[in-house]
Amino acid sequence: MSSAKGPTSLSNDKILLLVASPPKQDWISRIESRYPGIKIRWVDCTSSGALTTPDEIPAALWKDITIYSSWLTPRAELIPNVRFVQLSSAGADRWLDHALYLNPDVVFCSANGVHPPQIAEWVIGTWLSHQHRFLHYHDSQCEASWANRLAYPVEDSVGLRMGVLGYGAIGRQCGRVAQALGMEVYAYTRSERADPASRKDDSYWVPGTGDPEGVLPARWFHGADVESINAFLARDLDLLVVGVPLTKETDGILGAKQFDILSKKKTFVSNIARGKLIDQEALVAALEQGKIRGAALDVTDPEPLPADHPLWKAPNVFLTPHVSGRSTAYWDRALAIFEQNLERWSEGKPLINEINRTLHY
Amino acid sequence: MSSAKGPTSLSNDKILLLVASPPKQDWISRIESRYPGIKIRWVDCTSSGALTTPDEIPAALWKDITIYSSWLTPRAELIPNVRFVQLSSAGADRWLDHALYLNPDVVFCSANGVHPPQIAEWVIGTWLSHQHRFLHYHDSQCEASWANRLAYPVEDSVGLRMGVLGYGAIGRQCGRVAQALGMEVYAYTRSERADPASRKDDSYWVPGTGDPEGVLPARWFHGADVESINAFLARDLDLLVVGVPLTKETDGILGAKQFDILSKKKTFVSNIARGKLIDQEALVAALEQGKIRGAALDVTDPEPLPADHPLWKAPNVFLTPHVSGRSTAYWDRALAIFEQNLERWSEGKPLINEINRTLHY
Repeated sequence: MSSAKGPTSLSNDKILLLVASPPKQDWISRIESRYPGIKIRWVDCTSSGALTTPDEIPAALWKDITIYSSWLTPRAELIPNVRFVQLSSAGADRWLDHALYLNPDVVFCSANGVHPPQIAEWVIGTWLSHQHRFLHYHDSQCEASWANRLAYPVEDSVGLRMGVLGYGAIGRQCGRVAQALGMEVYAYTRSERADPASRKDDSYWVPGTGDPEGVLPARWFHGADVESINAFLARDLDLLVVGVPLTKETDGILGAKQFDILSKKKTFVSNIARGKLIDQEALVAALEQGKIRGAALDVTDPEPLPADHPLWKAPNVFLTPHVSGRSTAYWDRALAIFEQNLERWSEGKPLINEINRTLHY
Repeated sequence: MSSAKGPTSLSNDKILLLVASPPKQDWISRIESRYPGIKIRWVDCTSSGALTTPDEIPAALWKDITIYSSWLTPRAELIPNVRFVQLSSAGADRWLDHALYLNPDVVFCSANGVHPPQIAEWVIGTWLSHQHRFLHYHDSQCEASWANRLAYPVEDSVGLRMGVLGYGAIGRQCGRVAQALGMEVYAYTRSERADPASRKDDSYWVPGTGDPEGVLPARWFHGADVESINAFLARDLDLLVVGVPLTKETDGILGAKQFDILSKKKTFVSNIARGKLIDQEALVAALEQGKIRGAALDVTDPEPLPADHPLWKAPNVFLTPHVSGRSTAYWDRALAIFEQNLERWSEGKPLINEINRTLHY
């Protein structure tokens, strides 16, 4: 399967954008003038204040759609003619069993590269908040108390080690900021990246960010098997960033055994990928037993996390409701990718961020 | 005045370290073997749990001291023979009226360069915490509430502008991390830095951090007068880092007029230098009136901040009790500077971090 199929005018295409943004008229006008005849339907699925699901929008809007852009999965019957899906999420895990996704003739591209700046900020911000005990000082502030400042030693990040499990677009921007803090970066990828060419990232990135050339890590590790991952986790990591996509292979990749390995260094665990990557019961136990110094979790299993779930009150955990990818710049970036891909599609060139249907990222 | 006075053996010197660290025997042994005859007295002024003041330590320890290292100011009568003071703080503001400091034959050096990694982490961490509403999510977590994630737009830092008022060692490391986040850095210095040579920083820095060559800022600004500072503040700054030393010239440098200027962009103000740089009443008013989007303050006026001070509960303020400079690596770094300076002193070479007695930094 390849997205390079020869030029097409797009003049008969009908695009549906189901997005969390009001229509951007500049973008619509630019696309319409560039591809005469193209039809663009734009649905702001957050305009009501609550989230509008694909089934809740008028059926007429689905009619004859050939190109679809969203992070939401409509029933396959709604989009029989779609040949290109521009996801506005980094992962395709919501699509794995979808009839459209199982059709190799339909091209899927991710919004890989839209999220790294804000998610890296979330990772570094929660890490610094933990290391500098900001929540402790927040409590003191609420009590108008100039707390005893001698009692809390702070370990700054110089010389500490960040391991990135899944050195993709997000991990690369985490690495960039960590290196600026004076940290050492260890990268882990599924396949081996032995030479400079293989370390490059050809997905979209926001100019001035990331590590597109793959030059920041002090060391690279790789492997698809649990033994290789366990060996990586044993590398005295101070901070572990979990950035792998959720697939059948990675489901529950961090369990009791892995937390035992991390306990040597009491690694701080930051999960900004998917909740199911971590066995939640093992995570709660590791926190309660002090095997890890703490965790920052933007994702949980399940979501929303039930009010009586022990993770809410586990020690040294900071938890947000799957928001790290949010940014006021989000849709401008997602639309920039979509626009680049429409141009490549029209020219019959390979698209950027095309999802490999075997690896699912 | 210059610290370069020709070689000296240090064999008759007596050093007193009054520091917040237990004796580091490696360091002591190294200095004693390097300079035979030298006497080192080491007082851990935090060993009791509370802070021991200079007047509380036995008088015998002060006798015949020629070199003193601390951030604490003893009465001048205790140290009549001291010829070199290695401060363990970045600022000399506690010394401005001290008889020893007024004596031009006594050399003062700062611990400039010890603080940048941890203070830059504090600046970036509190900035990200504000921008990403971490305290809001902390409150939601305490209530085990998967809060509505659509309600809080997050502005990430890409393309935002950080202004550093006082682009010294700390500001340079803030600049380094900010640039990694994708921010634009504007630097402000007292004297003009028109060419590459003048933009270098010859003070101590932790390897792999900072901007010793002064190449990160997109633009440089300068001036010792209020008009120049006001013009800098008007440069659409998203984040203002206050990093100037406290002198008679900079006392109250940010007042009502300056907050009016900052209100155009609702600049977030981060003060990691000295509380007296900011008119606290004007700051509270600016926060209450929403003229600035928020503030992170590690320093206040006075310190400790009284429990009934309105700053504690001003909106969008995050406050810590003068802890940003703390780091478990602090004393290793301070001692590294002191050791370098003892060597330079013994060789009759100019010291590093020597304080200019006109500018006081």
